[in-house]
Amino acid sequence: MNNNAPIGFMDSGVGGLTVVREALKQLPNETLYYLGDSARCPYGPRPAEQVLEYTWEMTRFLMRHQVKMLVIACNTATAVALPEIKRSLPIPVLGVISPGTRAALKSTRNNQVGVIGTEITVTSGAYSTALQQKSPQTTVLEQACPKFVPIVESKQYESPIARKIVRDTLKPLKDTAIDTLVLGCTHYPLLRPLIQEEMGSGVTLIDSGAEAISEVSMLLDYYELSAKPAEQLPDHRFFTTGSKNIFETITKDWLGLDKLNVTKIDL
Amino acid sequence: MNNNAPIGFMDSGVGGLTVVREALKQLPNETLYYLGDSARCPYGPRPAEQVLEYTWEMTRFLMRHQVKMLVIACNTATAVALPEIKRSLPIPVLGVISPGTRAALKSTRNNQVGVIGTEITVTSGAYSTALQQKSPQTTVLEQACPKFVPIVESKQYESPIARKIVRDTLKPLKDTAIDTLVLGCTHYPLLRPLIQEEMGSGVTLIDSGAEAISEVSMLLDYYELSAKPAEQLPDHRFFTTGSKNIFETITKDWLGLDKLNVTKIDL
Repeated sequence: MNNNAPIGFMDSGVGGLTVVREALKQLPNETLYYLGDSARCPYGPRPAEQVLEYTWEMTRFLMRHQVKMLVIACNTATAVALPEIKRSLPIPVLGVISPGTRAALKSTRNNQVGVIGTEITVTSGAYSTALQQKSPQTTVLEQACPKFVPIVESKQYESPIARKIVRDTLKPLKDTAIDTLVLGCTHYPLLRPLIQEEMGSGVTLIDSGAEAISEVSMLLDYYELSAKPAEQLPDHRFFTTGSKNIFETITKDWLGLDKLNVTKIDL
Repeated sequence: MNNNAPIGFMDSGVGGLTVVREALKQLPNETLYYLGDSARCPYGPRPAEQVLEYTWEMTRFLMRHQVKMLVIACNTATAVALPEIKRSLPIPVLGVISPGTRAALKSTRNNQVGVIGTEITVTSGAYSTALQQKSPQTTVLEQACPKFVPIVESKQYESPIARKIVRDTLKPLKDTAIDTLVLGCTHYPLLRPLIQEEMGSGVTLIDSGAEAISEVSMLLDYYELSAKPAEQLPDHRFFTTGSKNIFETITKDWLGLDKLNVTKIDL
């Protein structure tokens, strides 16, 4: 295995960029390849079999680019596809649900944890199962937020309409005892200021994607796969199945990069 | 693999108990088996070949007890034996140096990191190599502290003599620019209050053993090896090659447990 091979990240759209942002910070030597399937986003309301199929298509694309490790930077795809893909590939594969779960249990002081995610992620019960298996005394309140991903993908995450949707959607969680809220979808950190404002400063928000990067870092060490420091900066690449323009605007805004190597592809 | 099998921890003596303490907190469902080779402690001044041999003896002992994961809770043994043992065993094996390295890089703001450890750990350069490979701009100052382990093993870690030894040993690090100091030996957290007092509050101390438990937790998830919550509390076991009495006193003091299942063994 080539230590200087890229790490592959994939998501239903631009949400996984919040994971890439953390990777740029924590793993400056690593080359990152990112694939966002914006053309078919959102995955959340789709049947599980279809999400599994789409996730396999993204996986095969990144495997053709010789990635050394694969990060499913999407909670929906993690909930549906992680076990099967991890079992099938010869490289380390990781998702975002376990890291989010561990961070939530570390953060909560009253064992009352909220989780927000897409319809599939919530219906799958992936978070509540994981949380209660590790800590049976924990109460988990889950809330699907079907409108959040479309707002982010259309780059309206700072608009007044976003504020209203966040307020309406989070109402059921607002007057509960939760002291920790897992952002169980990698798109949601783009709405973080609005979510924090709505939930109040007493609730700690957990960014499952950012937590996943600590796990990437650990597995790079564990498998002795870390990139060697090189003379030049790593040559990151971004692929989208959707609009190259919208993807570039969001990526530049969110990652603070001015030079981007973006390719529009079909899966 | 049986998820309810114990996790094995081993150390040259009682130092690894500082790792077990963190495991009791973060992983309450897990059964822990601990082996401390106090009869042959300290390992630090011994030739590397001998440390490798002793570490293999401890490994074989714990493997006979069907552990599902092995933690080399000793920096000296990690520096010398981790790669070979990890390659040879069919279960996950991890040490304390990588986690300490990652935590130090996360903590430092000025890229000036100190490392204290035994003679072998310092001579091996394990920490400075790992730190500089991840972050070439980091300056690493290392200091061997050969008198620290004997003080802890003889339960003098709160005595006036301990204070004097800590002060004299750390003198070369005291007036440097380091803002982070890795306790690169699992015995040292027992001297933590004295070390912190000597270095001042501007220096963040990194407990490599405590950091290792986050890695244990991740690997348990990654390999789907976490214990299922059980009706009864886990039945921890402790083994020492040295004095059962001294071991019990330090263990009760350090772990805050009043019931302990300790067995004196020969390797």
